[in-house]
Amino acid sequence: MTIKLVGFPISTATLRVIICLKELAVPYELDPPPSFQSIKDDDYIANKHPFGRIPVLFDDDFRITESRAICRYLTSKYQGKYNNTILIPNDVHKAGLVEQYISYESFYYDPPVSTIVFEEVFAKKYVGNEPNAEAIKQSREDLSKVLDVYEKLLEGKEYLTGEFSLVDIFHCPGTNLACGTVTHADLWDKRPNVKNWWNRLCNREAIKKSFEEIES
Amino acid sequence: MTIKLVGFPISTATLRVIICLKELAVPYELDPPPSFQSIKDDDYIANKHPFGRIPVLFDDDFRITESRAICRYLTSKYQGKYNNTILIPNDVHKAGLVEQYISYESFYYDPPVSTIVFEEVFAKKYVGNEPNAEAIKQSREDLSKVLDVYEKLLEGKEYLTGEFSLVDIFHCPGTNLACGTVTHADLWDKRPNVKNWWNRLCNREAIKKSFEEIES
Ligand SMILES: N[C@@H](CCC(=O)N[C@@H](CS)C(=O)NCC(=O)O)C(=O)O
Ligand SMILES: N[C@@H](CCC(=O)N[C@@H](CS)C(=O)NCC(=O)O)C(=O)O
Repeated sequence: MTIKLVGFPISTATLRVIICLKELAVPYELDPPPSFQSIKDDDYIANKHPFGRIPVLFDDDFRITESRAICRYLTSKYQGKYNNTILIPNDVHKAGLVEQYISYESFYYDPPVSTIVFEEVFAKKYVGNEPNAEAIKQSREDLSKVLDVYEKLLEGKEYLTGEFSLVDIFHCPGTNLACGTVTHADLWDKRPNVKNWWNRLCNREAIKKSFEEIES
Repeated sequence: MTIKLVGFPISTATLRVIICLKELAVPYELDPPPSFQSIKDDDYIANKHPFGRIPVLFDDDFRITESRAICRYLTSKYQGKYNNTILIPNDVHKAGLVEQYISYESFYYDPPVSTIVFEEVFAKKYVGNEPNAEAIKQSREDLSKVLDVYEKLLEGKEYLTGEFSLVDIFHCPGTNLACGTVTHADLWDKRPNVKNWWNRLCNREAIKKSFEEIES
């Protein structure tokens, strides 16, 4: 079995899969495309991702795209094989709640976080644009409301569903970049349950190691 | 066992769950909130959905929110119990591809479709606003690109992953409303594979019956 992950660690979607691989201790190779532009080439669209995105995972001949789908696949196939970490519980109700929180992440948490990350990190660094102040302001407002709900949901809990699971991982790449900016860390820091949850995640070995890959 | 679904059939997220229930032939009761406004009440937020949304499903005492999470839960728990319809295959690779297409639906297909539906159906009917022409134009452009990819992905296939699955259901509520407007049906109609796929879905008994609930 050879697992190849097509992507760059600075890409939040790619990092989501890297964290999942490391949490499950699944051996893999990173296989970055020749350039970020090349993911729009005909060959890439035809043989890697039909929408021209990263990441893409190859498990021998089996190809799968989209970070959250890749992580669910890896969990179904490899959970329990290399270590005892459980990312999706077997119990149908517990697994349902992991999916419920994944939906909160995908539809409420991720959009404003992604905008902040795009404007504050990528637009500056890669596009050379000044960040769009209006978009940032709106995202901060949206995210504040979401984090107020999270603050309540996390009351008395170590992780979103109680135990560590796939949904905690899904939040990491965007939060790492957004919360890593001096100007926006306050959103997490001023909510004690949210802050503790985030610190707990940052202290996990697999997550720490994954964040280090961005710098390298 | 009593399954209660909190929501209104005109809500696309609620209809997604109704179709899933009918496809699996799971008995349920619809339990509409007193009004659309009431889903922002403290009591609703505390006991139904922390973000003040519909739908919410109660399976006896077990509560779960978010349409796509609810459908995954229903499938895990009830697939094979009342009929032979398979919405998520047992094979880990096939299930992975259902998830891959669900991600295409959630992140590429649904956003422009939802904007068209909001502007053309809900803004007019419920908010009394004129549709935002600029937002509609942008969504048509985005959706055209997505449907060009779908046209290729559907080549030689009856459904998105080959066999009918949960991901086809997920597309139905939004497509029904957007494609049901005279002004936007062209986007689906002019792409033969997309058009055939959509007709195939509209002819399924469970889906037909679900669409009828909107009118009633
Ligand atoms: N829904 C996709 C998003 C993938 C995605 O958009 N990745 C970014 C990098 S983080 C990308 O490929 N961007 C190129 C583009 O959008 O054209 C996933 O979760 O994998
Ligand atoms: N991601 C949610 C979306 C739920 C949602 O937004 N439902 C709409 C009706 S289709 C709603 O409750 N809208 C009220 C609001 O957004 O305030 C799901 O799939 O269930």
